[in-house]
Amino acid sequence: MDKDEQCISSREVYSGKIVKLSVDEVRLPNGHVTRREVVKHAPAVAILAVNDKGEIVLVRQFRYATGRELLEVPAGIMEEGESPAETAKRELREEVGYDARNIEHIASFYSSPGFANEIIHLFYATEIFPSKLDGDEDEIIEKVIVAPKECQRLIEAKKIEDAKTFAALMWYLNRRRDQ
Amino acid sequence: MDKDEQCISSREVYSGKIVKLSVDEVRLPNGHVTRREVVKHAPAVAILAVNDKGEIVLVRQFRYATGRELLEVPAGIMEEGESPAETAKRELREEVGYDARNIEHIASFYSSPGFANEIIHLFYATEIFPSKLDGDEDEIIEKVIVAPKECQRLIEAKKIEDAKTFAALMWYLNRRRDQ
Repeated sequence: MDKDEQCISSREVYSGKIVKLSVDEVRLPNGHVTRREVVKHAPAVAILAVNDKGEIVLVRQFRYATGRELLEVPAGIMEEGESPAETAKRELREEVGYDARNIEHIASFYSSPGFANEIIHLFYATEIFPSKLDGDEDEIIEKVIVAPKECQRLIEAKKIEDAKTFAALMWYLNRRRDQ
Repeated sequence: MDKDEQCISSREVYSGKIVKLSVDEVRLPNGHVTRREVVKHAPAVAILAVNDKGEIVLVRQFRYATGRELLEVPAGIMEEGESPAETAKRELREEVGYDARNIEHIASFYSSPGFANEIIHLFYATEIFPSKLDGDEDEIIEKVIVAPKECQRLIEAKKIEDAKTFAALMWYLNRRRDQ
């Protein structure tokens, strides 16, 4: 059975700096017609950066949409002409001031497939060292270095309230057990 | 230092079935004024449901916003007056036809804190059994039962392309190793 939903018409209701919003009329596989609201957002990357002691580099920042400060892995939006790995390296430098000798793709996942097309490419950065290049002075971000045990404790205490960060930390805790 | 961003004015540019979109003028901690686009979405739940063999119940469904079929943990939006655990039980029944004797809260996380307020409450459902009540006939969803080894393989093959599902499966693989 074909499960695809076919677009009949699409109307852009907003086009802004970060998101666009379309309202589409779509035909379901059973022939019914319904409406889908789609938030369009550029692809993003997130970086699980680990130092030589196995500690993770997180950032604490206020997130206006949530009204809260969250503890997250460094992340950012891909710019025109960048590959995901290039964005990962740039964001690691801008947000926390590190360069990485080794960067590995872990996974790519949609953040909210029910209403948005944003995809996040998650990378694992190791052999990190302070960058000689400048970070981004405009970003108000606090760096937080977390040991694996503390990371486990934060998860159990339900202090990790960002999906990509929860995903990245669980991946890392699992990976450490393989080694 | 206060890192909060203060709302100066808020303008709703769209109000639909699933999302609302506001464009707010906000004052940053450094005094500068900027604009924030905020997608408003009801809270949601996701359920990591595991049968007596330790196998996970996933769903494969077409997601219009992504243009793809994704393999996901069952999930859905909270309805008026429901607690997160109640939504979890309802969605488990509607999407895959199971009831659960045991349901445990794992974590609550924002799916896209950069632009949306959607929070997902993730639950772990065990001692599941086929429900006597009807599921939701309208939802076109294929059930997929996955053994832990296959789940590990799917992650390594980068076939898990939904953030909450990646998070849930990594949590589960880690949990199994504790036992």
